[in-house]
Parts: sequence; C-alpha cells; structure tokens
Amino acid sequence: MLIRNLDATPLKPVQMDGVQGASMAVMVGRADGAPNFALRQFRVEPGGHTPRHAHDYEHEVVVLSGRGTITLGEKDHPLRPGDVLYVPANETHQFRSAPDQNDGLRFICLVPVSRNCGDPTPGS
Amino acid sequence: MLIRNLDATPLKPVQMDGVQGASMAVMVGRADGAPNFALRQFRVEPGGHTPRHAHDYEHEVVVLSGRGTITLGEKDHPLRPGDVLYVPANETHQFRSAPDQNDGLRFICLVPVSRNCGDPTPGS
Repeated sequence: MLIRNLDATPLKPVQMDGVQGASMAVMVGRADGAPNFALRQFRVEPGGHTPRHAHDYEHEVVVLSGRGTITLGEKDHPLRPGDVLYVPANETHQFRSAPDQNDGLRFICLVPVSRNCGDPTPGS
Repeated sequence: MLIRNLDATPLKPVQMDGVQGASMAVMVGRADGAPNFALRQFRVEPGGHTPRHAHDYEHEVVVLSGRGTITLGEKDHPLRPGDVLYVPANETHQFRSAPDQNDGLRFICLVPVSRNCGDPTPGS
C-alpha cells in the first residue's frame, strides 16, 4: 500500500512536441506494481496545452481545479472542476488551460499500464 | 467521449454488509465501454464507513474532500484531500469518515473492469 499527496509530489515538465507549460507526476504506476492502470497528475499553466494527438489507449480524467477546454476531433468542450472524462482510444484530443486564471488547469489522467498486447504504455 | 460532472451525478447508497452511510456513482465504467478500468465516486457520511474487506483486485484512490482514515490490515492511516492511495489486491481495507465534519469523506476509487481471468468486477 502507498499513500502520496498530490500537493507534496514534485511534477516534471512534459517534454513532447506540441506541449506548452505542462507538467506531470506519476502518482501510482508500473514502478509501484500497479497491475492494470496508472494514475498521473497533470498541471497545465494558464495559456498552456498538452499535445494534440491520438494513441491506441484510452484516458479517464478528473478535473481537480482551474478552467480550460478539451478539443476532441474538431470540437471544443469547456472544462471545470469535477468534470470526469472518458477519451476512447484513437480519438484525437488536446487539453488547453484558460489564459485568464492564476493557477492553471490541474487534472488526474489515467491510462492502462499496457497497450498493444503487452507493451508498456508511455508515462505509466 | 463523455463528460460528466461529479457534482451533477446522483449517487446511490451502497448496499453491502458492513457499510454505513456510503453512496457511490460509476462515473466511467463497463456500460460506457471502458475497456480496462472503472472510475467511481464515493461519499461517506460523517461517522460512516465502507466494509472492512479484501478482494482479488486493486484500488487506486484520490481523496477529493473531507477527512477520515483508511484501515489497512490492522493499521489506521489518516486521510486528507489530495491523498492518492494504492491498495493492492487481497489487502484488507476499510475507509472511515471522521465524525466531526459537515460533509463527510469524498473520494474517487478505481477498479479494473475485469477480475479472475475475465469476470466483471462488481461496481465497475
């Protein structure tokens, strides 16, 4: 068993093409022995965004604080605290943090630890 | 894709032996096509608790608000907002909501959608 607090865990900048001002920490993942899914914390600075991309595994997301949008395909959906999202595999998506706020967008994002018949999922 | 808000989703009382004052809503689960894991919202009234039990699948948990304890085996651990927990399969556990608070303990709890070589996980 492990207990870690979101506020006491240092985040690292996400280094990927198409990212601006996003950082991440794996809260529970493969390194902890999680057998099925990994729980990650993200923060996106005001005006920042995650990459616009798609991949062969799903996301489940909980917005913790802040405001922003998620772009799915060609459509934008507003995000607010308490929103829970299911982003199916292979659906193009991008998170954007609203520019006019102090602390940015903060959310939990889960992925399966394995993809494609057993390969490790990136960031799991 | 789906977006649902935690505050706009009705919860149903958890009907299990050993439960007091706990309610639950599946936010993303098998019925939504989630292929690997289910995301559920729990609220435990002040002084209430979930069952003391163990099962053959893991939990990953995020405490959203309130205070309480988790008992793991014979040991109690305090809980506060932002705590992220990994409860491995087959580890006896129980969530308790502190009695001296207004709104009780509120948390996200994830489970794999399948257990035991493909059986549906209860509450997924």
